[in-house]
Amino acid sequence: MPSFSTMDRIALQQEAEAQRARLDAIAARKLSLNMARGKPCKAQLDLADAMLALIGPDGTKASDGSDARNYGLLEGIPEARALFADLMGVPAAQVIVGGNSSLNLMYDAVARAMLTAVPGAARPWSKEPVVRFLCPSPGYDRHFAICRELGIEMLPVAMRADGPDMDEVERLCAADDSIKGIWCVPVYSNPDGITYSADVCRRLASMEAAPDFRILWDNAYFLHHLYDDRKDAVPEMLGLCAAAGHSDRVYEFCSTSKVTYAGAGVAALAASPANVDHIRRNLGIQTIGHDKVNQLRHVAFLKDRAGVEAHMRKHAAILRPKFETVLRILDAELGGKGIAEWNAPRGGYFVSLFVEDGLAKEVVALAKSVGVELTPAGAAYPYGKDPRDRNIRIAPSFPPVAELEAAIEALCVCVRLLSARRRLA
Amino acid sequence: MPSFSTMDRIALQQEAEAQRARLDAIAARKLSLNMARGKPCKAQLDLADAMLALIGPDGTKASDGSDARNYGLLEGIPEARALFADLMGVPAAQVIVGGNSSLNLMYDAVARAMLTAVPGAARPWSKEPVVRFLCPSPGYDRHFAICRELGIEMLPVAMRADGPDMDEVERLCAADDSIKGIWCVPVYSNPDGITYSADVCRRLASMEAAPDFRILWDNAYFLHHLYDDRKDAVPEMLGLCAAAGHSDRVYEFCSTSKVTYAGAGVAALAASPANVDHIRRNLGIQTIGHDKVNQLRHVAFLKDRAGVEAHMRKHAAILRPKFETVLRILDAELGGKGIAEWNAPRGGYFVSLFVEDGLAKEVVALAKSVGVELTPAGAAYPYGKDPRDRNIRIAPSFPPVAELEAAIEALCVCVRLLSARRRLA
Repeated sequence: MPSFSTMDRIALQQEAEAQRARLDAIAARKLSLNMARGKPCKAQLDLADAMLALIGPDGTKASDGSDARNYGLLEGIPEARALFADLMGVPAAQVIVGGNSSLNLMYDAVARAMLTAVPGAARPWSKEPVVRFLCPSPGYDRHFAICRELGIEMLPVAMRADGPDMDEVERLCAADDSIKGIWCVPVYSNPDGITYSADVCRRLASMEAAPDFRILWDNAYFLHHLYDDRKDAVPEMLGLCAAAGHSDRVYEFCSTSKVTYAGAGVAALAASPANVDHIRRNLGIQTIGHDKVNQLRHVAFLKDRAGVEAHMRKHAAILRPKFETVLRILDAELGGKGIAEWNAPRGGYFVSLFVEDGLAKEVVALAKSVGVELTPAGAAYPYGKDPRDRNIRIAPSFPPVAELEAAIEALCVCVRLLSARRRLA
Repeated sequence: MPSFSTMDRIALQQEAEAQRARLDAIAARKLSLNMARGKPCKAQLDLADAMLALIGPDGTKASDGSDARNYGLLEGIPEARALFADLMGVPAAQVIVGGNSSLNLMYDAVARAMLTAVPGAARPWSKEPVVRFLCPSPGYDRHFAICRELGIEMLPVAMRADGPDMDEVERLCAADDSIKGIWCVPVYSNPDGITYSADVCRRLASMEAAPDFRILWDNAYFLHHLYDDRKDAVPEMLGLCAAAGHSDRVYEFCSTSKVTYAGAGVAALAASPANVDHIRRNLGIQTIGHDKVNQLRHVAFLKDRAGVEAHMRKHAAILRPKFETVLRILDAELGGKGIAEWNAPRGGYFVSLFVEDGLAKEVVALAKSVGVELTPAGAAYPYGKDPRDRNIRIAPSFPPVAELEAAIEALCVCVRLLSARRRLA
């Protein structure tokens, strides 16, 4: 199939008619398929079910002898801190283990900075006339929702193949002290599946920025490889920032939401000693401590880094065919036509599809009209506004492969139909 | 033993010498006893251990068919909302089930009001020139710590036998719109063990106050009776506030921290429909939802109100002898001497001891010197400052009865020694 740009009007009309006919056939199937959220599927959740019964009445003591059922150990049980420290490559003393949601740790980190002065800050951010965050885009809609909720102005920054456009990031941060943060998903980014280069990480750590500037390093997918022989990785960021003389610059987050249970996992953060002190003091006022029995359960099940990696290979075995299905159909339906681009991520939870400028909303709406629910177009951009209206996030994890095939085919038919029609208009 | 006020100098000298000798003997025992925190003891935690194994791979579906292991159900699983609704006497639609800590729900409620405008507010409280909270005192130190952390000015209000001094509360709230809240532990209050009268509840619901005024109704001990035939209760507060035309005035909180596990229970809040909408919107930005598997586990174990009440009778059987030990020794050692007063609570976690003005700090320090750790004197007052320096909080739940006897005896000896000495000085 040739590129649309070389097709004459008749060929485009034939294409439009052919896709219209396919879409009618799809509509007749009355599909109800959902690819809107990066949810693990049932088979992935089942992988962790042995965890449920692992902690019984005889096993509720933490490694320091304290009773995990009672109050205490605000920072988490020592063995959970050690496990996350090992996974994140940081000292256990710099790890705080939280509840079940790393998003909650992130929201709380930003809300805390709004309400109390973080190390390096002259005052709580809520007392500043304006607070701005850099938002590499497309990015994770829930990061941007936190900024919107808390009245933080968002400045979009373009994503490149190796991470955010660092020339732009450096220029903005050097010029504007009201820029207090940047959202980063450094490995298998949401939604592009891009992994930051070591050079991007180093520039983030060493660039000029406000003394209370924070990198919100959401390492949501750093264990979530699809291929055992092609694993992306980034340098350990706490160390990079410390080496650059900006120890307090980064908060690192991760969780087991996509390792064990999406709704009942364990989240953790890592930060510099000064940041950990600040967080711990505030956390000790916010809560009596997180669920330590669930922390025990997780350590008993996952054991150590090798245990986690072995478990993640089981996830990969389920997810790999789904990603490959998406990419195979995108390639077959859209390859070489010059009407769409996409990444082929080696891990994470998403495939990011870029259609022609101004078409994304229309594609998502048309797909919805035939029973295929996608993430709303624009969701991956600050304020929900994709300036070129071209990005569509595909989340292949939840549907079974057969449903996924139907959904991606429908999506591609919508892209082809609308791309042909716009040339005929 | 007569009242100290009727004793002559010689009798007082004899008393001081006798107590000095007893204290030396106590010191020689090198005790290490802790009554500082309202922690459940091991036997209480053991009561819930059957819960650990209740949820297996076949039981992870919530009653609406959704998978409790996955994302979703921000407000909690329907059966957990129904259980808390039944316990709190409110509609399930007005209940949000949280994580393991009601303190966390309270901190978040206040932080949310600081950062986003609650129903009735002109703006987020952090944009107000000053925000004040009423703090019935003695009260719960962690409530006051939240105010301190978030820069909320605390106005102490006296506690009476039927709750806060309502004349003072009404006078202050009518005169000052910057008063945005009041902390209440309405049943078996911390630390006095006082239960609010129905009249106090009605006055709180109906009084004049700022449109964004909130009652933080921490119903921590409403199920925590010591005696089956003498149960304190308060009217349902959401209903009272609605009937008074102030639907949005109250946030109610409770948890299973002292029902199942202190460190791994489930907390919940109830509020008006407008408040629930506001909380839900913000919560949906803060988190993907709380641990629903632990919610399932709790419903499977506790079942319903009758199940909870049966379980609480087992707690009472453990706690009753401890409270009775404290009260018996206080009575034997300090009764009729006119040097101390205390309440005899019918539930909750504390006994509040009032010594003579200016003696509390000294008593706590002297007890510590012989190995008995109490809550720091003043902790139950805003800014840690007991204006009369006379309140000492006793937390009998954690130590075994034998240790409790030794600790309370030591405490009483300290009170008698210091009360005699001050008359001799």
